[in-house]
Amino acid sequence: MDRQKGIDVMFDPKSIAVIGASATKGKLGNDVMRNLIDSGFGGRIYPVNPKAGEILGHQAYRAVNDIASDVDMAVIVIPAKYVLTVVKQCAEKEVKALVIITAGFKEIGHEGAEAEKEIAKVAEEHGMVMLGPNCLGIINTHAPYNASFSAGTPSKGTIAFASQSGALMTGILDWSLMERIGFSKFVSLGNKAQLDEADLIQAFGRDPDSTFVLLYIESVVDGRKFMDVCKKVVQKKPIFVIKSGVSQAGARAASSHTGSLAGSDTAYDTAFKQSGVSRATSMAELFDIANVFDDMHLPAGNQVAIITNAGGPGIITTDACEAHGLEIAELSQNTVELLREELPPAAAVYNPIDALGTAQPEDYALCTEAALRDEKVDSVLVLVTPQAMTKETETAQVIVESHKKYPDKPLLAVFMGGNSMVYPRIVLTDGGIPVFDFPERAVNALAELYQYVLNRDSVKDESIPKYKADTDRVKEIIQEVREDERRVLLGSEAHAIAECYGIPVAKIRLATSAEEATAKAEELGYPVVLKIASPDIVHKSDIGGIKVGLKTPREVEAAFLEIVENARKHMPKAIIYGVDVQEMAEEGKELIIGCSRDVQFGPLIMFGAGGIFVNYLKDIAFRLAPMTRSDASELMKETKIGTLLEGVRGEPPSDIVAIQDTILRISQLVTDFEEIVELDINPAFAYEKGKGVSAVDVKITIGGEK
Amino acid sequence: MDRQKGIDVMFDPKSIAVIGASATKGKLGNDVMRNLIDSGFGGRIYPVNPKAGEILGHQAYRAVNDIASDVDMAVIVIPAKYVLTVVKQCAEKEVKALVIITAGFKEIGHEGAEAEKEIAKVAEEHGMVMLGPNCLGIINTHAPYNASFSAGTPSKGTIAFASQSGALMTGILDWSLMERIGFSKFVSLGNKAQLDEADLIQAFGRDPDSTFVLLYIESVVDGRKFMDVCKKVVQKKPIFVIKSGVSQAGARAASSHTGSLAGSDTAYDTAFKQSGVSRATSMAELFDIANVFDDMHLPAGNQVAIITNAGGPGIITTDACEAHGLEIAELSQNTVELLREELPPAAAVYNPIDALGTAQPEDYALCTEAALRDEKVDSVLVLVTPQAMTKETETAQVIVESHKKYPDKPLLAVFMGGNSMVYPRIVLTDGGIPVFDFPERAVNALAELYQYVLNRDSVKDESIPKYKADTDRVKEIIQEVREDERRVLLGSEAHAIAECYGIPVAKIRLATSAEEATAKAEELGYPVVLKIASPDIVHKSDIGGIKVGLKTPREVEAAFLEIVENARKHMPKAIIYGVDVQEMAEEGKELIIGCSRDVQFGPLIMFGAGGIFVNYLKDIAFRLAPMTRSDASELMKETKIGTLLEGVRGEPPSDIVAIQDTILRISQLVTDFEEIVELDINPAFAYEKGKGVSAVDVKITIGGEK
Repeated sequence: MDRQKGIDVMFDPKSIAVIGASATKGKLGNDVMRNLIDSGFGGRIYPVNPKAGEILGHQAYRAVNDIASDVDMAVIVIPAKYVLTVVKQCAEKEVKALVIITAGFKEIGHEGAEAEKEIAKVAEEHGMVMLGPNCLGIINTHAPYNASFSAGTPSKGTIAFASQSGALMTGILDWSLMERIGFSKFVSLGNKAQLDEADLIQAFGRDPDSTFVLLYIESVVDGRKFMDVCKKVVQKKPIFVIKSGVSQAGARAASSHTGSLAGSDTAYDTAFKQSGVSRATSMAELFDIANVFDDMHLPAGNQVAIITNAGGPGIITTDACEAHGLEIAELSQNTVELLREELPPAAAVYNPIDALGTAQPEDYALCTEAALRDEKVDSVLVLVTPQAMTKETETAQVIVESHKKYPDKPLLAVFMGGNSMVYPRIVLTDGGIPVFDFPERAVNALAELYQYVLNRDSVKDESIPKYKADTDRVKEIIQEVREDERRVLLGSEAHAIAECYGIPVAKIRLATSAEEATAKAEELGYPVVLKIASPDIVHKSDIGGIKVGLKTPREVEAAFLEIVENARKHMPKAIIYGVDVQEMAEEGKELIIGCSRDVQFGPLIMFGAGGIFVNYLKDIAFRLAPMTRSDASELMKETKIGTLLEGVRGEPPSDIVAIQDTILRISQLVTDFEEIVELDINPAFAYEKGKGVSAVDVKITIGGEK
Repeated sequence: MDRQKGIDVMFDPKSIAVIGASATKGKLGNDVMRNLIDSGFGGRIYPVNPKAGEILGHQAYRAVNDIASDVDMAVIVIPAKYVLTVVKQCAEKEVKALVIITAGFKEIGHEGAEAEKEIAKVAEEHGMVMLGPNCLGIINTHAPYNASFSAGTPSKGTIAFASQSGALMTGILDWSLMERIGFSKFVSLGNKAQLDEADLIQAFGRDPDSTFVLLYIESVVDGRKFMDVCKKVVQKKPIFVIKSGVSQAGARAASSHTGSLAGSDTAYDTAFKQSGVSRATSMAELFDIANVFDDMHLPAGNQVAIITNAGGPGIITTDACEAHGLEIAELSQNTVELLREELPPAAAVYNPIDALGTAQPEDYALCTEAALRDEKVDSVLVLVTPQAMTKETETAQVIVESHKKYPDKPLLAVFMGGNSMVYPRIVLTDGGIPVFDFPERAVNALAELYQYVLNRDSVKDESIPKYKADTDRVKEIIQEVREDERRVLLGSEAHAIAECYGIPVAKIRLATSAEEATAKAEELGYPVVLKIASPDIVHKSDIGGIKVGLKTPREVEAAFLEIVENARKHMPKAIIYGVDVQEMAEEGKELIIGCSRDVQFGPLIMFGAGGIFVNYLKDIAFRLAPMTRSDASELMKETKIGTLLEGVRGEPPSDIVAIQDTILRISQLVTDFEEIVELDINPAFAYEKGKGVSAVDVKITIGGEK
């Protein structure tokens, strides 16, 4: 069965068996049974326990096969060693969805991992979807059912939440009950032996009860699948993620600039960005955003109206808006006139609207509704400070009423204070208005929602360009390098590979003697560059391994000898293949274009300011391959050099299209050849518009045999 | 009387008169009386009201002069028009401190401002200190007294708080009562007609009841005084500030690079940094930090131990620590062995310590005390998630006990969850342990406290270097420019001023004809540079106003004509003084050194990567003048070019000392001459160590007559 269809059954089963159900309090099998019963599940509940009898009022069965009717879903809470047998029984019984709560698999080591694989294989073969093992379970507040051992059931809401940490879910559930945040689905991913975050995100995307997707993950199972799913789902609903833990890629020592500059988290950050997923910086922020989104529409633009009864908090809010890319709306003439007529003369009727410390509930109603009605306003922030004449609760009530009249525009409240604001805050929350204690958190949450709108619209359904390439020749070169038992390609080899993909490179010839060097120089034409050819020497210029601007045979000869001597002196153990003789490219703007490879997400392309100071300037940006032309364009624009290339201060623009082409050709090369684990072009010279680029120094490292 | 002595009286008066006291509920004069009585003030209370009689059990007086005994402090809550008269009466009565709550002064316009000045003048002449007008009042929880119209009195604590916004204080007071945060002093600054933030900070610094200074300000009255006071106070206690609102400097259009690159908030940011003041990014953060500091010692280093009962939250906390510059401590062998012996085998005994979901209170006690004892640990974070076997309240209790045994090391708790954590959190708070709902906020607060330790230690008591300078010649040049009714100096003038302060500049001569240009070129020696000399043309290269590397009289002649033509073509209205002929400096690393002037803080020095792309590279940093050599050194290190100048990738180091000297000479120049409102040296070429620098293009703009 199709996984998504399987998840549909899991989300809305007509019958649930609890295998390992127990009548004994304190046992997980008892917790699950009680949760299931208490959650008001309307379908059939079948406890399964070798002792049979009755459990919490439901007839128990010795085994799942003993149940006469169909079983849609089985929740498994038995010791790990029995799980495989039971899963096989479920397959026989044609159960469609498994929730394996039992722990003691991959997380305890190799043996557990093998057992887990075996179970997943059985599930896969029999078309069963499977959550876990080692998870808290799953809750659907709309079905409704709670098939987990959680302490309590979340309130019904529209947030779909999946988490890789069960403990975190427990904490969040407890907290959400206090904060009155509702969920639609509450899914513990566990070890992700079969169903992973991408499967759930896809299902959340189709789920009519969910408007917002929240994730806590420590890793993704399949980077490409994750990105493909997210790109589609974000078109319909926001995905916000907390990603913690260091990626495995970070552990590998990098020999290229690109590898060393891509931090352990760069691939995740890039993947999120490229697929429209928003990354929250903290748990608190994640739920601030969820809190706003749960009840509200998305802001159509970034124009904010602020209503306050005190100057200071108004200023703080204005500052926060500006810091987060939101703008203080210029109110329409109608609004201003209405406020001027109705408010006291000392009130500020431009934005922020200061209704003064004496503001009464009706003043707040007037201002809030005027702002909600105003077409120049995309969202409204209402601030209340507890002053002598402030009626906090009544003010909360009128704000709720205003929201009911104009429900389409985001409306957030900031009720600054403590004890006197407790009840008003409940009034607002129950009225569907997100409320905060300080302005900055409200502004941040609103800004994140607006950012989602921008992210969503930036994910384009654009095709990946396909250039003609001589892949056979590339295969040959790689084969030769392998036969030579090398990982690092010689300059001549790397340049040849680049040429196979149509990248304009400086021509290069390997010379093994001073005489050969002068001969090759004659062939290429003066001036030339000489570079040490050794797979062991990565930073050639640091050891005097490069000589540029050589104009005569005599200069070439002298340079050859000096380079070889420098290499012998500084790196006596390096294997030296000779010296590369290279045609001297005309100088242009120095760029770096490179690629490293992430374990989860594959080829990670870097672009930025090149030259020997790359590591110090750090003017770089990243995208995951394969890339579209928009990706290449945005990648360039993220860097400062990208702006300079467009031509500033009277300089002519550089050949932007040729640079994009080079990036896209690299993207295609490293997508075609997984063997290429690192690639650096540094520098590539960019010339004026129409004059192209030239890859001056190409370095390639390949991995072991596949 | 000395202001600080006056504040001492204000902080601890023996007698307080409430001028405008009222028996009528709802009047501010009634609120103040009730707060004063309810706060348990032990001194004499004198209500003053024209109707006399008795107010809230205290005999009232018609006027302050009618009181027979001494009056230390007078709180004034009468209509604005009577305030001056009453202040004069207070002067006669030899009152020492005034708290003017009355509004209707500077904030309502010119007339109010004049009245305010008059009142401040009387106070100053008679040696009275004066808070306000237009303020909420002042509270000292240790005296104790509450001389304000606040709704409620804050709990006794060690945080001294001063705020420019009364409404904000009201909100914070209410909130602090709920969050159980205590204050020592609670001061509303109002219009700051006399006492300003710096006076209060200085007093908080001396106050034995205050260990922590919090500020909310929208502006400072005197930048230099503020910095001087803060530098001293941060040596003893942390100062955290929320600064909102846009500085006035932002409004002025800037013609220099430095001016345009210094944002409206740069001077404040720089002032805070240079004086060891920490800037909080939000109200919530400010109070998170206060919450931690209120009860805790400062961390001695950045090594953190994390104790948890679940993996996910442990990972999140680890990530947060790394993001904030805190390190996960390597536990000492003793600790690891103890934990391995006592905890279940599956527990993680390295840091983070995972005592597993089954962790009982005694396990938490064991881990917490082991971490607190460990010499390799500077602070401890205890995380608790509500799992099936978790005893939240008992766990809170043992953590409090552990803290009592080892009170010298910061100990923070994160109890993730909602309803089940409410009571445990109270236990912790009452036990002096700051507690948070999510890990990131706890980590952020801890990191900010550690950052304070670093800031404090970075503020050095170092003298300002004093270079020999020809100030008379500078005065002459400025006078000549003024007589010429210009603001922008010609290149030759600007270079001459730089030379007066010992800055090595490329020599420059003004030529008004092609013939004169060749003559000057002969005098300076070839090659030369020609630049348009016009106060109206700021970005010369943009209009073809610069020609470099001119080697012959013929080239100079051609360049002269072309430059003048370009200028006429592109800027036909520009006044052209001729063309500057300049000796061609040997190329070096391009720097920019500049200065703009901030309204509050004076000269703001900028250093960074120079050249025509300054605005795009934005590799710049700022310091306020006058500067010490350490300031100059740190300023350089904040930029990427600063690292490159130290010599990387086999390059020789640049002449760091000469660059510092140039920065310090500029600092002295703009401190000596307030007329200089903007100054740019761009580029200055930096050469190898020992070979100095050369200022190639110096631009100076002067302001109007003082």
